[in-house]
Amino acid sequence: MKQIVVHEVGPRDGLQMERQVVPTDTKEDWIRRTMESGVDIVQVGSFVHPVKVPQMADTDELIRRLLRDKRSPVILAGLALNKRGLERGLECGVEMFALGASASETHSIKNTGMASMDAVHRIIAAGQEAMAAGKKVQVSVQSAFGCGFEGPVSEVRVLEMAAAYVEAGLFSISLADTAGHAHPAQVERLFSAVLELDPKVECTGHFHNTYGLGMANIMAALRVGVTSFETSFAGLGGCPFTKVAAGNVATEDFVNALQLQGLRQNIDLGSLIRVAGDVARYFDREMPGCVYKTGSIQNRESV
Amino acid sequence: MKQIVVHEVGPRDGLQMERQVVPTDTKEDWIRRTMESGVDIVQVGSFVHPVKVPQMADTDELIRRLLRDKRSPVILAGLALNKRGLERGLECGVEMFALGASASETHSIKNTGMASMDAVHRIIAAGQEAMAAGKKVQVSVQSAFGCGFEGPVSEVRVLEMAAAYVEAGLFSISLADTAGHAHPAQVERLFSAVLELDPKVECTGHFHNTYGLGMANIMAALRVGVTSFETSFAGLGGCPFTKVAAGNVATEDFVNALQLQGLRQNIDLGSLIRVAGDVARYFDREMPGCVYKTGSIQNRESV
Repeated sequence: MKQIVVHEVGPRDGLQMERQVVPTDTKEDWIRRTMESGVDIVQVGSFVHPVKVPQMADTDELIRRLLRDKRSPVILAGLALNKRGLERGLECGVEMFALGASASETHSIKNTGMASMDAVHRIIAAGQEAMAAGKKVQVSVQSAFGCGFEGPVSEVRVLEMAAAYVEAGLFSISLADTAGHAHPAQVERLFSAVLELDPKVECTGHFHNTYGLGMANIMAALRVGVTSFETSFAGLGGCPFTKVAAGNVATEDFVNALQLQGLRQNIDLGSLIRVAGDVARYFDREMPGCVYKTGSIQNRESV
Repeated sequence: MKQIVVHEVGPRDGLQMERQVVPTDTKEDWIRRTMESGVDIVQVGSFVHPVKVPQMADTDELIRRLLRDKRSPVILAGLALNKRGLERGLECGVEMFALGASASETHSIKNTGMASMDAVHRIIAAGQEAMAAGKKVQVSVQSAFGCGFEGPVSEVRVLEMAAAYVEAGLFSISLADTAGHAHPAQVERLFSAVLELDPKVECTGHFHNTYGLGMANIMAALRVGVTSFETSFAGLGGCPFTKVAAGNVATEDFVNALQLQGLRQNIDLGSLIRVAGDVARYFDREMPGCVYKTGSIQNRESV
């Protein structure tokens, strides 16, 4: 079995939702400690308009700081939604681009001002340019399982978007349950269909816990061959342009679940728990994550 | 596929954990509305010592009140741990007994003052007496997936206990993850083994969300043929005699998950959400359940 990839999106998907702008030094501390824990990818921020999303204005600066003395194999990623974002990422040296378009027309227009398939074509152009520049690229279909505005999202549309990515040579595909509408049967069906598009396809799952199904959806995706997951420290998260968004599955809860099942013992769960605890203390509220509150299971050997 | 059974344990497993003793009239209102929603079983309370667990002192009185004008097919259950509890249940006319023993010696001693297998034999005697009196009986193995005190619990021990129940003609068997240690692979393995003991066995799952895996464990159990689940309104719950217990999976989150997958459309989710909201308002704090906060998914047809 391929090693499951843990992709921390708290600094991006988590912090973009917070009214409070976290100082760059604090972010840097949380990210450095997350990097040291042994996760595989950290999404440091997004290259979006600093006036629209001031929480992400320091993404370029953070990438520069983290690259300066980087020795760990963790990949530093940034989210871009357009050409300008791509340019900023290339300038600051980000190692991986997360590029995405929404399967919901309403969400797509609100997020990017473009219809879904127009956004896909822009994303493909950006992805190809990033690959040509030697960067890793992950392309996503946002709102792939339902939309807070529109309700159900057409699975045919999601597959069309994924097929367009594949045809363009972009094989690392994330399906994001932006609104948290996904349920396990749907997750199994849709990821299986995307994985069948081409043997080169590698899928990433991204699940919000709006209706309490985030972890169940991760487990469903794991079962059908999804090998990479985006999660957020302490369970922070949500998209500012969707309705009733709730947090992502908490990274430390996910890693605990993997380790209970004998996977990813090479990640330092204690260190992730400490970061999540610091994030919760910083915002001074109880976060959705469980394991940062309870600690990992004591006296538990694998059974 | 057999209809999935929804067994509400909030009035018992939920309220026993609360410092505040909820007035009988308030409990009665919550329970009546839960009964009307179309769930299958409501565990009204437990027949335990009123000084040890004062929150449950009115279980007999509640059962009497609810039976007085009962027309709905919902089954009214009560938990008993010994002979005295059984007698009280028979006296007040409870329709179903939930009887349990813990697979963890430490938990068993703390909960009942008896070693696990001694408790099993008492439970079997009580179960047989209840059946002879025409009652429905569900027997459980508590701490079946791990224990907050002892850590791992022997799967052999759990199967021994389940086999003793089966041999005694008690085929409705619940495995309870009292501490919340279960993970999906373990859930699939252990329930499969219990279901294989005898074709007459019917299993119930009971999962606490201590480490964020409650719903994922329910989905895993569903997959291997478990057809009944104990959940708690608003996600209340926990056992007063375990460490770091967290709430059960919320009933309204579970029913929402079932309905997204096309199951149990005959339960009124809106009504469960209103009860959970009232429970949260009563205790004046944010509860672990998700769907009572967000409402069910709007504009969502089955996909």
